[in-house]
Amino acid sequence: MLQAAKKLGKQTFKFDNPPVIVSYASIVGPMEGQGPFGKEFDYVLEDDLFGEKTWEKAESKMLRETLKLAVQKASTSPAEVDFLLAGDLLNQIVTSNFAARALGIPFLGLYGACSTMAEALALGAMLVDGGFAERVVLGTSSHHNTSERQFRYPTEQGVQRPLWAQWTVTGAGAVLLAREGKGPAVTRATVGKVLDLGVKDANDMGSAMAPAAADSLLCYFQDTGEEPEDYDLIVTGDLGSLGLKVARELLVRGGLAVGENFTDCGVLVYYPEQDVHAGGSGCGCSAVMLCGPILKRMEAGNYRRILLVGTGALMSPLTVQQGESIPALAHVVAIEKKGEG
Amino acid sequence: MLQAAKKLGKQTFKFDNPPVIVSYASIVGPMEGQGPFGKEFDYVLEDDLFGEKTWEKAESKMLRETLKLAVQKASTSPAEVDFLLAGDLLNQIVTSNFAARALGIPFLGLYGACSTMAEALALGAMLVDGGFAERVVLGTSSHHNTSERQFRYPTEQGVQRPLWAQWTVTGAGAVLLAREGKGPAVTRATVGKVLDLGVKDANDMGSAMAPAAADSLLCYFQDTGEEPEDYDLIVTGDLGSLGLKVARELLVRGGLAVGENFTDCGVLVYYPEQDVHAGGSGCGCSAVMLCGPILKRMEAGNYRRILLVGTGALMSPLTVQQGESIPALAHVVAIEKKGEG
Repeated sequence: MLQAAKKLGKQTFKFDNPPVIVSYASIVGPMEGQGPFGKEFDYVLEDDLFGEKTWEKAESKMLRETLKLAVQKASTSPAEVDFLLAGDLLNQIVTSNFAARALGIPFLGLYGACSTMAEALALGAMLVDGGFAERVVLGTSSHHNTSERQFRYPTEQGVQRPLWAQWTVTGAGAVLLAREGKGPAVTRATVGKVLDLGVKDANDMGSAMAPAAADSLLCYFQDTGEEPEDYDLIVTGDLGSLGLKVARELLVRGGLAVGENFTDCGVLVYYPEQDVHAGGSGCGCSAVMLCGPILKRMEAGNYRRILLVGTGALMSPLTVQQGESIPALAHVVAIEKKGEG
Repeated sequence: MLQAAKKLGKQTFKFDNPPVIVSYASIVGPMEGQGPFGKEFDYVLEDDLFGEKTWEKAESKMLRETLKLAVQKASTSPAEVDFLLAGDLLNQIVTSNFAARALGIPFLGLYGACSTMAEALALGAMLVDGGFAERVVLGTSSHHNTSERQFRYPTEQGVQRPLWAQWTVTGAGAVLLAREGKGPAVTRATVGKVLDLGVKDANDMGSAMAPAAADSLLCYFQDTGEEPEDYDLIVTGDLGSLGLKVARELLVRGGLAVGENFTDCGVLVYYPEQDVHAGGSGCGCSAVMLCGPILKRMEAGNYRRILLVGTGALMSPLTVQQGESIPALAHVVAIEKKGEG
């Protein structure tokens, strides 16, 4: 069969003119502000409501302001941006829809659960490299309280969480990708397949997502012929401490020895003392870590080449109630600093 | 500012090598099978459950089988398809996620409410024309009973629907787009902006979506310099009889005289005697009309050039309860038969 011109191997895509991350922005909640990277986000909310009447409105405002900030930092305006790509965890991705209403940029809504940031980066890079856009703004968000009451229990109920559960990050991250400009570039992406190894515990999303993360990483390295040590950082979205352990084991079994450079945004975002059990999760988890600490370290020269592995658990409360197991998906995005220095 | 190479005017994109619709498939529910086009779908379900225990499982099976059928008709296999693009109305697009799990094709999940078929066609065409794919399969679905109980009331409750309400179509449609092959081609697409003129009645989605449909169509004709009479058919997704009237009025006010060639999939899909009030709606509405009657008429030579205008109402039950109005979005996709004959 014929292979597409920009495809490498089975599931990986290369960009002939790698789209540049010319700006990025992040806004986080109070608890994320108290975490180890609290000073590296653009704005830390004083409370969960951000001046709004409901958590849902607060989440949408957070995403909207983060997207606006990324556009502003790139010294451009929404009218000069060709596409907005966004998605989130709320039913019918209303956080993103309402943010898009305020921005007036041609909008493509995405849903990849917590893999959405990587999905948006991969697609955005394809639109720029494919000649359809000069500039794409993309972002995603999650909010602890909107997620708790939608996916689990009313927050007021105070249900005890098992130790392997994760804590949904309150935060939004956004990137402005452009055909030209200064900044690290998106050079390749592996688009994942949906995998389901039968995990049914909706509190154990790390284990549900680990096989997808391992599969997409194995595919990335097979398709490119590279090795994990070619990267300064290989960071999954929100596997948490348990999922990260499972993914590492699966990678080793797959013949890929990942070292200290392999970690997870959900493991990084909080201090263990913050009592979040297995770590952070949610669309916002990888988005804020990328659009704060990670890209800042690339800017500072600490990292030259990284892989972001967005990981998503694709169930709903209804499918769990109907006895289904949890399908999962992971996309890999390579971000590299160009030659200078 | 620089303009992207493949962009025309403000929001329209042209494909240098227009991706070809090499195959298409549709499966509908019993009621759609009794409508005016009932004989033009590939398969009509005997009942709403399609052999499954729940309506949600039935919807996912319907989408999965439709996607498989489109792949099969193109004499290819899922392993030879570069991307699956899909979305639906259920929370966390679980219909699509579970269909993707069964197919094993690299998956990009979308959410554009009932505009999803047009969103998938536009994005799929960009991926093929941009050099990232040789073949993309895309599809979407809706199910009357899964939608009713998620967005409105338990179906058992028998709540009376107002005369301006629409009836969610039970059906799935899928297309296989390829870089080469025989069939009509996707030549251009206009990606819409989210518009909200303040409609708050969740039963009146036609009025909520009409401004977005009119805006994207006005933009399409301005960007391309063409006229409505250049097309054999300009068909919106699911405005219904009321929304179609509003859209026609808005187009006239915008200086665009649309004639008899302007209609709506929601108006077409049922007989008035089927008591669906303002017509059909749902992601499946435009998907089954496109992937059945419309593409069949293109194949037969009745139509040479058409515009599909996917229309989506981007609210959720929660945003309606929180007093928000209904944002809406519309994408335009041009499909043309090539020169032969």
